[in-house]
Amino acid sequence: MALLPDPEPSRRHFVVVSVDDHLIEPPDLFEGRMPAHLVDRAPRVVDTVDGSQAWLYEGNHHPNIGLNAVVGRPHDEWSMSPARFDEMRPGCWDIHARVADMDKAGVWASLCFPSLIAGFAGVAFSRSKDPELGLACVRAWNDWHGDVWAATYPERIIPLQITWINDPLVAATEVRRNAERGFKALSFPENPSNLGLPSVHTDHWDPLLAACEETGTVICLHTGSAAWTAAQSPGAPLELATTLFPINGCAAAADWLWAKIPLRFPRLNVALSEGGIGWVPMLLDRLDYVSTHSGSGMSGAWTGDLTPSEALQRNFWFCTIDDPTTLAVRHRIGVDHIMVEVDYPHADSTWPDTQELLAGRLAGIPTEEVELMTHLNAARLFRHPLPPPGWTSGGAAA
Amino acid sequence: MALLPDPEPSRRHFVVVSVDDHLIEPPDLFEGRMPAHLVDRAPRVVDTVDGSQAWLYEGNHHPNIGLNAVVGRPHDEWSMSPARFDEMRPGCWDIHARVADMDKAGVWASLCFPSLIAGFAGVAFSRSKDPELGLACVRAWNDWHGDVWAATYPERIIPLQITWINDPLVAATEVRRNAERGFKALSFPENPSNLGLPSVHTDHWDPLLAACEETGTVICLHTGSAAWTAAQSPGAPLELATTLFPINGCAAAADWLWAKIPLRFPRLNVALSEGGIGWVPMLLDRLDYVSTHSGSGMSGAWTGDLTPSEALQRNFWFCTIDDPTTLAVRHRIGVDHIMVEVDYPHADSTWPDTQELLAGRLAGIPTEEVELMTHLNAARLFRHPLPPPGWTSGGAAA
Repeated sequence: MALLPDPEPSRRHFVVVSVDDHLIEPPDLFEGRMPAHLVDRAPRVVDTVDGSQAWLYEGNHHPNIGLNAVVGRPHDEWSMSPARFDEMRPGCWDIHARVADMDKAGVWASLCFPSLIAGFAGVAFSRSKDPELGLACVRAWNDWHGDVWAATYPERIIPLQITWINDPLVAATEVRRNAERGFKALSFPENPSNLGLPSVHTDHWDPLLAACEETGTVICLHTGSAAWTAAQSPGAPLELATTLFPINGCAAAADWLWAKIPLRFPRLNVALSEGGIGWVPMLLDRLDYVSTHSGSGMSGAWTGDLTPSEALQRNFWFCTIDDPTTLAVRHRIGVDHIMVEVDYPHADSTWPDTQELLAGRLAGIPTEEVELMTHLNAARLFRHPLPPPGWTSGGAAA
Repeated sequence: MALLPDPEPSRRHFVVVSVDDHLIEPPDLFEGRMPAHLVDRAPRVVDTVDGSQAWLYEGNHHPNIGLNAVVGRPHDEWSMSPARFDEMRPGCWDIHARVADMDKAGVWASLCFPSLIAGFAGVAFSRSKDPELGLACVRAWNDWHGDVWAATYPERIIPLQITWINDPLVAATEVRRNAERGFKALSFPENPSNLGLPSVHTDHWDPLLAACEETGTVICLHTGSAAWTAAQSPGAPLELATTLFPINGCAAAADWLWAKIPLRFPRLNVALSEGGIGWVPMLLDRLDYVSTHSGSGMSGAWTGDLTPSEALQRNFWFCTIDDPTTLAVRHRIGVDHIMVEVDYPHADSTWPDTQELLAGRLAGIPTEEVELMTHLNAARLFRHPLPPPGWTSGGAAA
């Protein structure tokens, strides 16, 4: 197999800050970042008997799935099969190549989630047989993300950490450590109870939530980060689960909302990462109906000055990849809480046609609203710098 | 406790055909409708030690839940507690009282689903320890529904049957028997695999689907009919599950669609009963993106002339209870596939304020579209007669 020829740089219409992309952990990620007595047990990339490659960790192989690294690959070669590093576009794991690919698509800045060796929320390491080893891996991943992935081009990458979910106190300490060195976001499983952990309807997570609120760290709930899908039927084609990605965001937002987290942590920001905005008007309308009609006050689940739908609009943030119908009713959501995602290098990704797709979808929307959605909201939420004036002008990047 | 005073009849703005209401099975439902040797084992209503009432069937008690019979009860008495028949508004189980209540709210016709003794899709009887007894109960329920509930006021009730889900051949025979005596609809679990049965991604159900297509029997997938909810977290307030009702409709529609049922049974009509229309634009947009971009052709899951979203718009039917934002983008769904529901006597019900709520929600929409959504689409889908001219005029019913 071969990668497609390098695409031509797009004409830049918009400054894009993408709030959902992925990195694929490079083979040297853990080198020099593990305590000496754990070095030999750090995850490492090995060749497998089928000619592929996989991460080897605690005796198990974890391949990178082809669909999670499709950019630059011919469409008829997309599959669920394991992918070797040399079959992937280098932008998957090399930050210099990534920034060059961002330039090609006019993406100014990017929030990059992990891939399978860590899990979208770092959950894989938290599930280690040896917790000391797992926590060292979480810290090494965060150190690498901060020192290499984000620090090489600090204006282009929004630093995101993974979470040690086994202990909210340890997790809170890690949040504070990372906030001091510039991290702005944390990836957390959308529903910890699906992983056998206490649900968000307990006070178990309060130390972590408090640390995030205090440091302005955005909690990002990535679709699929808790091993749950609304696609339940055996024998269904892969398209069913792909179609239902947005349901995860909806279920997570409703769950975190009814857990009263916006009431207990009023300055906490929660981003629904991937899953679009198609469900947000439905959820707002439904919250209004349920809270004024169907079950109002019955369980005493809600108190305070804000209604549930107002709290959703205040504390939660959403991102779109391709929701043309919902963009028409964007004011119901609040244009100041809608962002965009590119989802590089996954099968959903708009790369390298991000600019062209957005130009079609955003046609007819006033410029000030377009600017909010394409970059200003994300820059404000994640406290990230904007590009120098003229970054979009003159067509493609030099 | 006491029921509220009888409400004043509403001013009638619209002819309403409600495609999602419920009946509560009356205590005498099975009398005279069971084979002689099973009479003693038919479900029967008994007084329980806590002063409530419950159906006794195969040694288990099945109470009617208060939230499923809230109409006419003071809001502060709504609860999940069991309800006695004398605590319910008689319209719950008595067809004369029901039609009087429909008159009060300007509801011309109603499609009534079962309550807990049967399960929304009759699943409870199919799960009987003794299958002979269970099947006799399904047939008795259908006989009663046809002979009493629907036949007493044939222009006011759309006959709906429950399904023997243990054997698609038996179920198909029952569909044909019922079609001959005027049944127009069948309640089927939204996802049989959640009940341990073969999924819709097999050919197991084809005899039943073929019988429905052949007889023009609409398959109604009622939210919650397969014991699945997107509300997963332990300790969540009841409002979470109530808020997430719509997810069931979305997940079921996507599931039945990717099972290629519209391609294999092109004239089959599938109604998503309860759950609103808020998710339909999202699903259409998402289907278009997934089928042209993210996974197009990868699994070979889709063939034929229609796209998945076009098939959703052709074979599936939707109903709204309160989706103001989505009504603004109703043309994306197709105004000819949107219907309304009242959900009498459940906690979500708009009764007795159905007319007033609809008047607010439908304000500004052209009359011909309003007429499609309030009654013409439902009358066409379920082949049900329309009211005599002038039925809405002159304010409340005599």
